[in-house]
Amino acid sequence: MKTTAKKDIRSHCAVNYGVEIFGDRWSLLIIRDIVFVGKKTYGQFLKSEEGIATNVLASRLAFLEEQGVLSKAPSPDDGRKDFYSLTEKGLDLIPIVLNIVLWSGKYDSQSYVRHSQEFFARLSQNPIEVSEEVRALVRSGGCLFPDGNG
Amino acid sequence: MKTTAKKDIRSHCAVNYGVEIFGDRWSLLIIRDIVFVGKKTYGQFLKSEEGIATNVLASRLAFLEEQGVLSKAPSPDDGRKDFYSLTEKGLDLIPIVLNIVLWSGKYDSQSYVRHSQEFFARLSQNPIEVSEEVRALVRSGGCLFPDGNG
Repeated sequence: MKTTAKKDIRSHCAVNYGVEIFGDRWSLLIIRDIVFVGKKTYGQFLKSEEGIATNVLASRLAFLEEQGVLSKAPSPDDGRKDFYSLTEKGLDLIPIVLNIVLWSGKYDSQSYVRHSQEFFARLSQNPIEVSEEVRALVRSGGCLFPDGNG
Repeated sequence: MKTTAKKDIRSHCAVNYGVEIFGDRWSLLIIRDIVFVGKKTYGQFLKSEEGIATNVLASRLAFLEEQGVLSKAPSPDDGRKDFYSLTEKGLDLIPIVLNIVLWSGKYDSQSYVRHSQEFFARLSQNPIEVSEEVRALVRSGGCLFPDGNG
């Protein structure tokens, strides 16, 4: 079932394919919320400080699920709620997200990542190793900053 | 001078900052065109197969220049034309672009990058080393696929 009105892929250039799947203003922020602070539910994503609109969030979650980046399962505590998590395809976006963090930490003088200097230093020195660690952590249900600061 | 109507940065989360600068449907494709096939002019970017609209291209080029990702200089051959190139800040986006290529090559069965198997294999094995090579190549005015296939 098609859940979005998104058009066909414009080209199969490998950069364009990525841009088509997650290159909008919101998808990477949803993935960030899962990786950095362990968000799982629609209500949690909705509270992100960038202020996503309810209909946009619903449409992005459906699209990312349709594209095999997110999977959805009823919460074990409350079957009326859904928990979203990253699939293997979604977990493989972690190196991209962390490379964006490196770039922004270097060029945005107000970047929050400067508050997490130890993490940023380790990431700068060993991006591949740290990406693999973070992937394993998130895959097992964890996140980088469980206390919500990142 | 503000050349776009873009709003202020929504947050200084390091993922969001990157998304604000290049996370639209076009900026990474402009950067791709420079890195992969050595495009330099407005007219060349306009011909990309994804079909960017003239006003969108003009606005993205101005925004990326304003953000210090691209710089613009008159063509040495024809002073009425401008040549766009990546600044140091723009060159530092190359690892992100190449990580997107890796991800798409893995998950898009129709990805063109599968035509460049040697490059894709080298990139998979040594992403950091290959990113640095490509950065040096583009910085010196070259590109990955000068014959236009990539």
